[in-house]
Amino acid sequence: MSVSIQDPLLPFLPLLYIAWADGVLEETEINFINKKINENKTIKPETKDMVCKWLNPQNPPSARVLAYWKNYIKQNADLLNPSEKSDLFSIGAQLAKKEDTEDWVNDETKESLHLIEDYLGIVSREALRSVYENDPVTSTYLPTENLSEKAYSKPLKALLQHGYPDIKSRVQSILDPHKEAIESYDDDLKTRKEKVLKWCKELANAGLGNLAYPPAYGGSGSMPKYAAVFEEVSKYDLSLTIKFGVHFGLFGGSVESLGTKIHHDKYLKDIGTMALPGCFAMTEMHHGSNVKALQTTAIYQPDDKTFIINTPSQYDRKTYIGNAGMHAQMATVFAQLIVNEEEHGIHAFLVPIRDSKGNTLDNITIGDNGHKMGLNGVDNGTLHFNSVKIPKENLLNKFGDVDEDGKYNSPISSSSKRFFTMLGTLVGGRLCVPIAGQSAAKKALNMAVYFALERKQFGPPGKEEQSVMDYPTHQKKLMPLIANVFAYDFAHDFLLNDYSNNKEADSQQVEALAAGLKALSTWNTTETIQICRESCGGKGYLSEMYFDLLKADTDIFTTFEGDNTVLLQLTAKSRLTYFKKQFGKMDWWDTLKYISSIASTNLSELNPLVTRDTSEDHLLSDDFQIDAFTYREEFSLRTLAMRLNKKIKNGMDSYDAFLDVQVHLIDMASAYIDRVVLERFIVTIDEQKDDSVKEVLTSLKNLYALHLIEKNKGWYLEHDYISGSKSLAINKLVAKLCKELKEESQQLVDAFDIPRHMTKTALKFY
Amino acid sequence: MSVSIQDPLLPFLPLLYIAWADGVLEETEINFINKKINENKTIKPETKDMVCKWLNPQNPPSARVLAYWKNYIKQNADLLNPSEKSDLFSIGAQLAKKEDTEDWVNDETKESLHLIEDYLGIVSREALRSVYENDPVTSTYLPTENLSEKAYSKPLKALLQHGYPDIKSRVQSILDPHKEAIESYDDDLKTRKEKVLKWCKELANAGLGNLAYPPAYGGSGSMPKYAAVFEEVSKYDLSLTIKFGVHFGLFGGSVESLGTKIHHDKYLKDIGTMALPGCFAMTEMHHGSNVKALQTTAIYQPDDKTFIINTPSQYDRKTYIGNAGMHAQMATVFAQLIVNEEEHGIHAFLVPIRDSKGNTLDNITIGDNGHKMGLNGVDNGTLHFNSVKIPKENLLNKFGDVDEDGKYNSPISSSSKRFFTMLGTLVGGRLCVPIAGQSAAKKALNMAVYFALERKQFGPPGKEEQSVMDYPTHQKKLMPLIANVFAYDFAHDFLLNDYSNNKEADSQQVEALAAGLKALSTWNTTETIQICRESCGGKGYLSEMYFDLLKADTDIFTTFEGDNTVLLQLTAKSRLTYFKKQFGKMDWWDTLKYISSIASTNLSELNPLVTRDTSEDHLLSDDFQIDAFTYREEFSLRTLAMRLNKKIKNGMDSYDAFLDVQVHLIDMASAYIDRVVLERFIVTIDEQKDDSVKEVLTSLKNLYALHLIEKNKGWYLEHDYISGSKSLAINKLVAKLCKELKEESQQLVDAFDIPRHMTKTALKFY
Repeated sequence: MSVSIQDPLLPFLPLLYIAWADGVLEETEINFINKKINENKTIKPETKDMVCKWLNPQNPPSARVLAYWKNYIKQNADLLNPSEKSDLFSIGAQLAKKEDTEDWVNDETKESLHLIEDYLGIVSREALRSVYENDPVTSTYLPTENLSEKAYSKPLKALLQHGYPDIKSRVQSILDPHKEAIESYDDDLKTRKEKVLKWCKELANAGLGNLAYPPAYGGSGSMPKYAAVFEEVSKYDLSLTIKFGVHFGLFGGSVESLGTKIHHDKYLKDIGTMALPGCFAMTEMHHGSNVKALQTTAIYQPDDKTFIINTPSQYDRKTYIGNAGMHAQMATVFAQLIVNEEEHGIHAFLVPIRDSKGNTLDNITIGDNGHKMGLNGVDNGTLHFNSVKIPKENLLNKFGDVDEDGKYNSPISSSSKRFFTMLGTLVGGRLCVPIAGQSAAKKALNMAVYFALERKQFGPPGKEEQSVMDYPTHQKKLMPLIANVFAYDFAHDFLLNDYSNNKEADSQQVEALAAGLKALSTWNTTETIQICRESCGGKGYLSEMYFDLLKADTDIFTTFEGDNTVLLQLTAKSRLTYFKKQFGKMDWWDTLKYISSIASTNLSELNPLVTRDTSEDHLLSDDFQIDAFTYREEFSLRTLAMRLNKKIKNGMDSYDAFLDVQVHLIDMASAYIDRVVLERFIVTIDEQKDDSVKEVLTSLKNLYALHLIEKNKGWYLEHDYISGSKSLAINKLVAKLCKELKEESQQLVDAFDIPRHMTKTALKFY
Repeated sequence: MSVSIQDPLLPFLPLLYIAWADGVLEETEINFINKKINENKTIKPETKDMVCKWLNPQNPPSARVLAYWKNYIKQNADLLNPSEKSDLFSIGAQLAKKEDTEDWVNDETKESLHLIEDYLGIVSREALRSVYENDPVTSTYLPTENLSEKAYSKPLKALLQHGYPDIKSRVQSILDPHKEAIESYDDDLKTRKEKVLKWCKELANAGLGNLAYPPAYGGSGSMPKYAAVFEEVSKYDLSLTIKFGVHFGLFGGSVESLGTKIHHDKYLKDIGTMALPGCFAMTEMHHGSNVKALQTTAIYQPDDKTFIINTPSQYDRKTYIGNAGMHAQMATVFAQLIVNEEEHGIHAFLVPIRDSKGNTLDNITIGDNGHKMGLNGVDNGTLHFNSVKIPKENLLNKFGDVDEDGKYNSPISSSSKRFFTMLGTLVGGRLCVPIAGQSAAKKALNMAVYFALERKQFGPPGKEEQSVMDYPTHQKKLMPLIANVFAYDFAHDFLLNDYSNNKEADSQQVEALAAGLKALSTWNTTETIQICRESCGGKGYLSEMYFDLLKADTDIFTTFEGDNTVLLQLTAKSRLTYFKKQFGKMDWWDTLKYISSIASTNLSELNPLVTRDTSEDHLLSDDFQIDAFTYREEFSLRTLAMRLNKKIKNGMDSYDAFLDVQVHLIDMASAYIDRVVLERFIVTIDEQKDDSVKEVLTSLKNLYALHLIEKNKGWYLEHDYISGSKSLAINKLVAKLCKELKEESQQLVDAFDIPRHMTKTALKFY
């Protein structure tokens, strides 16, 4: 049986703890307490019995129970003001409040408790102080025997904070006070959206919205800092995350990246404080993934130097636009620029859509996207422009402009290159969405692991039931997901810094990585939350366990900021183009032939001894794992090039050829991303100074790599990269790693730093 | 570009269709129509322009456009009363209503249209009648060119109705009128639960609740009929399905199966009409899967021949009990029966919990499980019994009773066997849950396929965009899921009939199948809905596409009526026991040795020629597919037996040995279920008389089988069952089958018979 406390007893826990903390009580002391408790008419008879039972010297609490009480008091007292923390009654009242047993809280009880304190001769403030002292054995809240931190706990947690613990605790300090409102299901949609706006403004007021903007406009010029806010907010409310991201990241980001000084000076400060709420109007009813084919037009009017923004038909309305439904006053609108009847492709324009009082402006029709699967705290809407006139300077003109003489000019002559350059500046969103997904996955794993450690079911005949975490099937479900989350975390951090430090450099590789990593990482999020929910059984279905909103809110992550399947094709094409570019003016055919040949050279001859090597040392080595990942990547690249080559040679046009090999593009892109993620995991381990951290990360890296090889074993076996016996050895080793890492499961999810009140829910079986 | 109609034009569609249906208009006729339209002050100038443009003889609609108009009118007119169906104005008004352009609907327009009808010399009732005539080319509602049914359409649809088209249409006729209420998101939780109860009672009043009960009690003694209702209701609202299932299936089913004549006579009629709403109180806070360890007690009181039902601690409260939160008046409570201080294990008792006015009875505390991920139309609650007294006859005494002398007796002497016999009678729930899941999966596929056919995105340079269904990645996502749904459908039907026809026979095999099939089928549902949602992109995220509730409501299907992972272990253990039983008194060790030996004999020597045979004929043959499935099953069984054998031989106790091989138990059970599903698919094809049905089902069977072999290719390659080249050939063939079956995708989902108004939503891009 687990250690646990019956609800009605909770308010008396501080009293009981203090009573037993210093050893066995005198009979007179027990009698006094019993008397005071029994005299109190507001306490129910059953409760009195329970309290008295726990004061029986024949029945003292075990050391484990005492440690548990102490810890429980500490955790709950952490929610009190310092002045209340050392008062028996206040803490008891807090515990009562947490468990809905507040009938106990009254003046009579207050008096009883104070009398008891005095009688026991304990200066209560002093005695209770010991509860709050740092004690490694009891400082984490854990219901089962395992109450200790591990050597790696602190540095590992710090590692996942990516250098910004301060930013994270600022976010926590802003959102913690709202936790009840955040977790309420009572709001209607409109009220909820207003609340989300309010919280968003609080973050802005604390200077947490504009961190990515240049210091001259109130920011700190740091994308990683902005991402740290994004990650932390995601632990609380994903509608807030997305509203925050739409306004500061997409809208503000478009002004910063696509606009020039005139726009920065005029808008960035107000965007940073949210004085000017905005939205990002790209997607249309009939054009989502195919941005190039958007139908909204922006026709230049030389007479008065304006643009007319127009929605040609109902199918061309902007849709799913976050922040448009209720709050945005300005939209970055993507439209086909037409100057003197000539089309210049997609450009972005700032279009005011509401006045500062929130009234919709003339010739603009705003709709609401209605009830959604999730993110119902975000006001997604539709926008219809009926020949809306905007001044010339509202064109975000960094990559294309209309001059004073009404002539179009651009620093980038190729319209296709211009298009991709513009979209490329918006890669920040693709970096941030999966980071929000990671937070959701971490929260899900935190809940599932704490649940699995606490929940007991079945057991050997005649013995105690077992923790479900002891079941191999359960370990096999959860442990690889924990390893994945670490793997993607390091990859995101790497990419974020790379992007942040090399904004002006050739960004094609960053974009390709961002697109592919976003796809694999968000799919991992969806899978993780699903498996975690199932692993918590019926309790996982209750909204209090968060899986409800975690699932519903993140479900769209695989779609927005680029549909995952489309993104992986982008990644694959970009990989092919990368080779093409490296060799100047080669055409597609030559490039494909070239890739086939170099990849063949790189693909080492398979050594039958290695193919059959089933030793643990070999399987756990970086060399084997990297070689396996690289082999899959290069082989896919080569066969893809060969397939395309053959089709084009046979007269197929390149569009159809690429369509035909679509599934292989996805495979190749996935193999590429997998390899980068593993490499980054290894580099991260090398960078660690603490041996305990290195050790646990190495186990996680091994599990990440071998589990993925196991998942792709069909491919490896098809291509004779591993023998059947080696494949079986890998299956076995994965199970072994899962079992070993299970012992670290609590400490690993503790490193995710999920707010404690959430964890507590996982442990509450009413 | 797809054929489509601008919203404001919709009300004029009947007019336009009639104007063009008989050929080119005379100039005078056009002028008259233009004049009448222009004179009408209630029609907006833009709309007038559009209408006139469509009447221009230089710009006649193409045959395809005309067919589309006709079809569109027909579909919408189907919602009208017969008398309104042949009136231009009424149909136009209906179209206007569907598209929210109702400002058009007024007397002035009515007059204009009637004048136009008269002038054109068309007797409108006659002309419109042609719209409703059966025309194979236009009789299905389809937005793209493909407007035809296929030869197999009608018989295939009939096949999936499993012989009960009448029951299904009765359900539809009851629920269709509620469709707006069902699909509303405006209700608070309490209101919603009341509505669901109301619909449930409507089904009961129509005689659709008690179909499984014996005719003597108002039913028809047919489990398959009951399942048909269940399946059909699931297309509308899964909360209703579950509430219906809890009351009629679990509560009523427990009275029928565990009770005797006294209970049947007293309760079954009232249960059938829902005059006595009930619930099924098995799960407790601390015991879900481990039913045997339930803590609630039922202690016999010889003095007054009663039982005292008691909840020993807060952790032993009944929880997640559907119908308990608000509506049930009686509960079937599972509790440890104690007679004269002797425990006799779990038995079921009828405990009144509310009076007929809905007031909770004394000594019973009912809680609410709060907000859930889904199924929020079901009132799940907790039950706490504080020494509740019930008469002796409230024990459901079919398998265990207390006689007049206060002595326990049972027709089954082994308490373990008694326990499993009691649970076995409740297998109906495990048959029905996955059937509800299948309906959800069908609805999801219907939406995804219609969306994919209509949605266009990207395309060859300078050409029209392509339907996303033309993308190989999309085909690879959706088509295997369609094949799976057919496969599971036939398996469920088979099992349902088997169960229904052999209730009294040894039911172990049915139970093992039901448990395992429930697991694989509900996981398939979860996966199907997820992939369908993603395949519909942003639109899939809007609640109007149903994925929202489909996902949230079905998510618990993998947990309730048995956690899937636990169920598969049951299936596996039952398979092992099956062999044990066949040979009398063999002990576990001997059995395991025996299984190892017979399985080895059965496993044919692998023929290298077959292992490498990549011919299409071979891969598409039943023989190869069945052999592949059987090989995996028997090999898993043998290695499992060998593993267990070895562990037990080495002194491990059998509990630990089974724990160690948990993952292998799951694999073995899955392989067993997969083989049965494939066999049943083949039998179903053999039973068909219509060649076109045979043909399309054979393609689906091939896709089901080969896709599953592809999914398990790692295993097959590890065990040298197929060569690498054969595996690659299978991958290729799966892609080919997906591409071929894509051509049937619309007709295949049409066979699912999803209410048309749902399908329409998939085609609406605002």
